[in-house]
Amino acid sequence: MNAEIISIGTELLLGHIINTNAAYLAERLAEAGIDVYHQTTVGDNPERLFRAMRTALRRAEIVLTSGGLGPTVDDITIETAARLMHRDLVIDRSVMKSLIAYFKLRKIAIPAHSIRQALVPKGAKIIRNAVGTAPGLILESGAKTLICLPGPPRELEPMVAASVIPYIRKRGAARGRAAAGVIRSRVVRITGGAESQVNAKVKDLLETQPPTTVGIYAKLGEVDLKIMAKARNERAAAAAIAKVEAQIRRRLGNAIFGYDDETLEGAVAQLLLEKKLTIATAESCTGGLIAHRLTNIPGASGYFPVGTVTYANEAKAGVLGVRPESIARHGAVSHVVALEMARGIRHIAGTDIGISATGIAGPSGGTRHKPVGLVYIALVTKRRRIVREYRFTGSREEIKFQASQAALDLVRRSL
Amino acid sequence: MNAEIISIGTELLLGHIINTNAAYLAERLAEAGIDVYHQTTVGDNPERLFRAMRTALRRAEIVLTSGGLGPTVDDITIETAARLMHRDLVIDRSVMKSLIAYFKLRKIAIPAHSIRQALVPKGAKIIRNAVGTAPGLILESGAKTLICLPGPPRELEPMVAASVIPYIRKRGAARGRAAAGVIRSRVVRITGGAESQVNAKVKDLLETQPPTTVGIYAKLGEVDLKIMAKARNERAAAAAIAKVEAQIRRRLGNAIFGYDDETLEGAVAQLLLEKKLTIATAESCTGGLIAHRLTNIPGASGYFPVGTVTYANEAKAGVLGVRPESIARHGAVSHVVALEMARGIRHIAGTDIGISATGIAGPSGGTRHKPVGLVYIALVTKRRRIVREYRFTGSREEIKFQASQAALDLVRRSL
Repeated sequence: MNAEIISIGTELLLGHIINTNAAYLAERLAEAGIDVYHQTTVGDNPERLFRAMRTALRRAEIVLTSGGLGPTVDDITIETAARLMHRDLVIDRSVMKSLIAYFKLRKIAIPAHSIRQALVPKGAKIIRNAVGTAPGLILESGAKTLICLPGPPRELEPMVAASVIPYIRKRGAARGRAAAGVIRSRVVRITGGAESQVNAKVKDLLETQPPTTVGIYAKLGEVDLKIMAKARNERAAAAAIAKVEAQIRRRLGNAIFGYDDETLEGAVAQLLLEKKLTIATAESCTGGLIAHRLTNIPGASGYFPVGTVTYANEAKAGVLGVRPESIARHGAVSHVVALEMARGIRHIAGTDIGISATGIAGPSGGTRHKPVGLVYIALVTKRRRIVREYRFTGSREEIKFQASQAALDLVRRSL
Repeated sequence: MNAEIISIGTELLLGHIINTNAAYLAERLAEAGIDVYHQTTVGDNPERLFRAMRTALRRAEIVLTSGGLGPTVDDITIETAARLMHRDLVIDRSVMKSLIAYFKLRKIAIPAHSIRQALVPKGAKIIRNAVGTAPGLILESGAKTLICLPGPPRELEPMVAASVIPYIRKRGAARGRAAAGVIRSRVVRITGGAESQVNAKVKDLLETQPPTTVGIYAKLGEVDLKIMAKARNERAAAAAIAKVEAQIRRRLGNAIFGYDDETLEGAVAQLLLEKKLTIATAESCTGGLIAHRLTNIPGASGYFPVGTVTYANEAKAGVLGVRPESIARHGAVSHVVALEMARGIRHIAGTDIGISATGIAGPSGGTRHKPVGLVYIALVTKRRRIVREYRFTGSREEIKFQASQAALDLVRRSL
């Protein structure tokens, strides 16, 4: 089975709001094994909406619309759907009753224009809206189904979960077109390499054909591989994913820091807690971002007692004990100063690990020899001293983020 | 003039990512007075993309696509555009040169498949991509123009602002089809009050009718009022906005910290620089977020020499000089400790201002008397000592953010 999504609203065409409904609907449909090949957005214009609905119903078995169910004259979805399906509009008693109850509860007289919301195309099935006044509608016509939902996500989402997806599954089964199964996905999260390097290692996997596919997504300081499997049931999908995942793991090994919603800072925190190790941060160019990310994880006080942000050279010397000669000779952005910062904070904090970052976040402050984006990161433990040089590009905030990512990844790989 | 937007990517059809590009493009086009009547999303499928492009080019003078310009076999936008426009693909020397420079800068060998990105339809204008490797393309054919942009927002957005909108304006003027009018907007950014409080003060303004309207948007730790004006030209729109803005300013005064893209940390930075004052941070529950935000602003070293994150009580005492008796008697989350932290960091750093935050970010660690979300923020200067108690709700990260927002706002209002 396949479906299309039509998002309705001039505010979408003007870019005043971001269309989260389309993503929400698409994800729920994919999970139910329904293919979506087109999403369309149109404004509150009857002719264009009519044509968009007609085109979508020609291409797909199920068309879902969101928006345009409100009480104002701008809200034209119901009239347009009725015209397309050749249905009259009739007052629905159950909707009328809920409207009366809704306003009574809020001790407001029913506004005259709200009564319009009780008008529905003849023969439509009603989807209850537990949050707002606009009910959803299901209109069946032969092999085709049009489902109209309200625009506000907090109204639409519960209706989709509670009514729409169960309806679609049942309808598919009744028509002997049960969604051929389920779609499951797993994101493999990688850092420490460019998209092109990851790409080179999994090139063949990216060409894997359905029902199991792998996509590559570059993010700032991270590359994600998304494995998608379409299978007849949960178990088969999980097995298909596991097989590809094992191959990715074999090739990328320790470059993988987590899966799905796992974060790099979460991975670092888990390792620190498991190994009962503590860490302290000495930040310059990252400006507190490493500490911020480490403390985003609940229970951070178990491994992170203290961090410093020493922007001024005097603070590097005064707070961390970096030698003024080191700064004078090598500059604050140098291997030497990075090491002394990490060593200094480890000493002060009495932690197992000291991690530091010093660099040029820009946009100004760069020179030919030390350009914007140059960052030194040092990690010091009882036995080890590691310093790495990085050259990042991007805005100030992007350089800060990439530096924090590299620092956290250095910690992760050292554990 | 009118335009259409085509968003390309199977990840959009599957709902893996939310389509922010369509909203961004729509908003920029609306500002330029270009009407958009349709937005379409299709996957990485050559036939469906071909048909979507053809349909859009029939309906609109300008079609903008985003996505599908990467180096992998999934990326089909260029080939499809070339096929639709009956153009051969040729190697573009300037693109080849930037590709070589891009990888050289990163000290990575050019991956073989990346060379594909230098192939462009014959006669295409190239839009430089300052962030990534995929250039944008402009393909003109008679009265129609197809503009292809990369998918990642951080690549697309600067290209639209710097190249696409100026191109469209010039093209419209050249064809004697200057846009009929302009839409301008201005966001008034407010913090320190709930949405309902702001709402109560501007209730009548929210009912203003087109062509000038006001919308209210609640964000975490912030309330925004968006003024929109449609007018025949820039000047008339600016005047309409200024009139409403003056009324808002009269009612909300100092609760307004900025406009449009201005940030709270930016406002604080500007005031510190203007008044030649310096600040140091002593953070506990915010975990470095205040320092991170202050150092997101270029030139932060001019006002921010040093910050600390003291999670452990020993660090509060050892690093900041908080008295162990104060912690023992009042607890680390208390008025007294917040004040001693701010005083301590100001003393150590020798700055004009010391700001501190101590609280319970959760999800655990709360008690009946000191629940999750309780935060004390203190500000100490030569003459002043201010401590405030806050009770925030939300997730750990939301509480951290709101606390950093309150701390920065306390600094701003004190300047």
